[in-house]
Amino acid sequence: MRYSVNDLTKVCVRILRALGASAEEANIIANQLIEANLKGQDGHGVLMLPYYAKQVQAGKFRFGVDFEVVHETLSSALINGNWGFGQVISTKAMELAIEKAKRQSISLVGIFNCNHIGLVAHYPMMAIKHDMIGITICNAVPQVAPYGGRARKMGTNPISIAIPSKEEKPIVLDMATSIVAAGKVRAKYTKGEKTPKGWIIDSEGKPTVDPEIFLKGDRGEPGGGMLLPFGGYKGFGLSIIIDLLSGALTGAGCSSTELQRGNGILMSAIKIDSFTSIERFTERVDNLIRSLKNTPTAPGFDEILMPGELEFREYEKRMKEGIEIDALTLGNLESLAKELDVHV
Amino acid sequence: MRYSVNDLTKVCVRILRALGASAEEANIIANQLIEANLKGQDGHGVLMLPYYAKQVQAGKFRFGVDFEVVHETLSSALINGNWGFGQVISTKAMELAIEKAKRQSISLVGIFNCNHIGLVAHYPMMAIKHDMIGITICNAVPQVAPYGGRARKMGTNPISIAIPSKEEKPIVLDMATSIVAAGKVRAKYTKGEKTPKGWIIDSEGKPTVDPEIFLKGDRGEPGGGMLLPFGGYKGFGLSIIIDLLSGALTGAGCSSTELQRGNGILMSAIKIDSFTSIERFTERVDNLIRSLKNTPTAPGFDEILMPGELEFREYEKRMKEGIEIDALTLGNLESLAKELDVHV
Repeated sequence: MRYSVNDLTKVCVRILRALGASAEEANIIANQLIEANLKGQDGHGVLMLPYYAKQVQAGKFRFGVDFEVVHETLSSALINGNWGFGQVISTKAMELAIEKAKRQSISLVGIFNCNHIGLVAHYPMMAIKHDMIGITICNAVPQVAPYGGRARKMGTNPISIAIPSKEEKPIVLDMATSIVAAGKVRAKYTKGEKTPKGWIIDSEGKPTVDPEIFLKGDRGEPGGGMLLPFGGYKGFGLSIIIDLLSGALTGAGCSSTELQRGNGILMSAIKIDSFTSIERFTERVDNLIRSLKNTPTAPGFDEILMPGELEFREYEKRMKEGIEIDALTLGNLESLAKELDVHV
Repeated sequence: MRYSVNDLTKVCVRILRALGASAEEANIIANQLIEANLKGQDGHGVLMLPYYAKQVQAGKFRFGVDFEVVHETLSSALINGNWGFGQVISTKAMELAIEKAKRQSISLVGIFNCNHIGLVAHYPMMAIKHDMIGITICNAVPQVAPYGGRARKMGTNPISIAIPSKEEKPIVLDMATSIVAAGKVRAKYTKGEKTPKGWIIDSEGKPTVDPEIFLKGDRGEPGGGMLLPFGGYKGFGLSIIIDLLSGALTGAGCSSTELQRGNGILMSAIKIDSFTSIERFTERVDNLIRSLKNTPTAPGFDEILMPGELEFREYEKRMKEGIEIDALTLGNLESLAKELDVHV
């Protein structure tokens, strides 16, 4: 079924309010879930809501927690997320990073004890509205093998960086350091499809195209498989850096050693006019985008895509046409609404 | 021929002094060239000296230039390198980044008008001696195709991040965002070998294993080839971010639009105890390293390697056994010494 953004937001907000969210929390979480759907990243969209509801009911995701700054300098802060919703804590953390960067040129804000961050690109994009570059990295529970290994030791450890432009669309990098996000394996399974070669290996370290083997690993069953890092030892190296910066530095813990659940998170904002005028900077960004998009294409390619470009296209399309919610997700949302006695 | 570090340093310092370097400059440059050789990164080692000499004689690389801070805040600085040696300017820039991070928790220092930075990992490793995390990124002249393209539009745009440890070796990521550094293609050519599949494409965008086609591109000849980004669209995305941060933000210019030569450079230092004690942090780093190295290996692998591990091994080996200089490089150094009337 296809929903307008407005209608889908109302449904999500009502469910979240019934679960105990304040109006502010419900809006932050609902808007971000729907932003993910709009960008075509359905794996981080409203399908998460029934899972979140279970976590709230189990006492693992909490509403109304303090945004607790445990350590602070002019340019930095360390936040105890007190197991609140990642979207709520992380939004406030990026707001703090932006405030600090306004005065200090660059800032760094870490978060520990924090649940699922959701759509990672959301936070760096907050910074570009303030003529800043935004950076968000986080680690996660282990689902990825080290390069050359055959055990789950790394999270999908994504990195997202947003850079403002002038007339062109901003540059919004948002990528897992695994070859794909775990959600894409799950999506293949749901559709009854095999995964492409090179995505996953089994517990013996042999390549497999069976997504069920990966999901076994998610369930902690013996013989479970895992994702590979992207780009071999280089992607693995980046993933280690992200694990240490967002896990060891923040105290959330590294994926394979201390992290309990959720994400260790690190946010940074860089004030552009501490280096050059925003005018000249954004002109340079536009010029690079145009230079790259004008590159003659290699066989098998129709165009050169910028980081975030496909997501912007999908966003515009879905804003016009509405968001298609698959039958399974819709059924889950309707059951949840019924259980909570919410009219949808 | 095999040289001890001492002897090789003396040769390099004498040549650099004869070219016009101050004692301080000669030491910085010589030590860094030899550090590259020690780490097994011979492409950034003493073989660069004859090239540097030509650039000095052509007035393109300058000694004795001002370290000109054109814009500064408590946490940031923008440096005009005045076309000095990259090693000299970048060392001072990282020293400044470290000083700023001591007081401000995190710092960011950009450099424009700067020649070849040399061994990128050298600078972030300066930070770990101060219980900091160091980051260096830079762009470079175009040698790499955009993902899906067939023209040189990106530099090899490397990223290096150093993270201190306790008993284990520090983590030192140092990687080009191209599939390999350009020097590795040149090394294959010198040895009369083909390049592995997947490294380079020709001007039609077709895969090739002929390093000569890449070198044609370096010489600006028609039909020249180019490197591919590592990890497909993800490595390309990272390369764009590096181009914008080190080129557009610093004013050095992006690789394919404004950069004249050399590198646009960005340095950052992060003070660890603004977040957690150095003790706890480095323990966590050690624990992650041990957890990863204890992973059972996949078929075809003997061990899990940490970023920088191979370089540390090579360093220890060559410190003991000396540095082997190939006949071609030795001949070039001897000719240069003779030309400069330097006793080697």
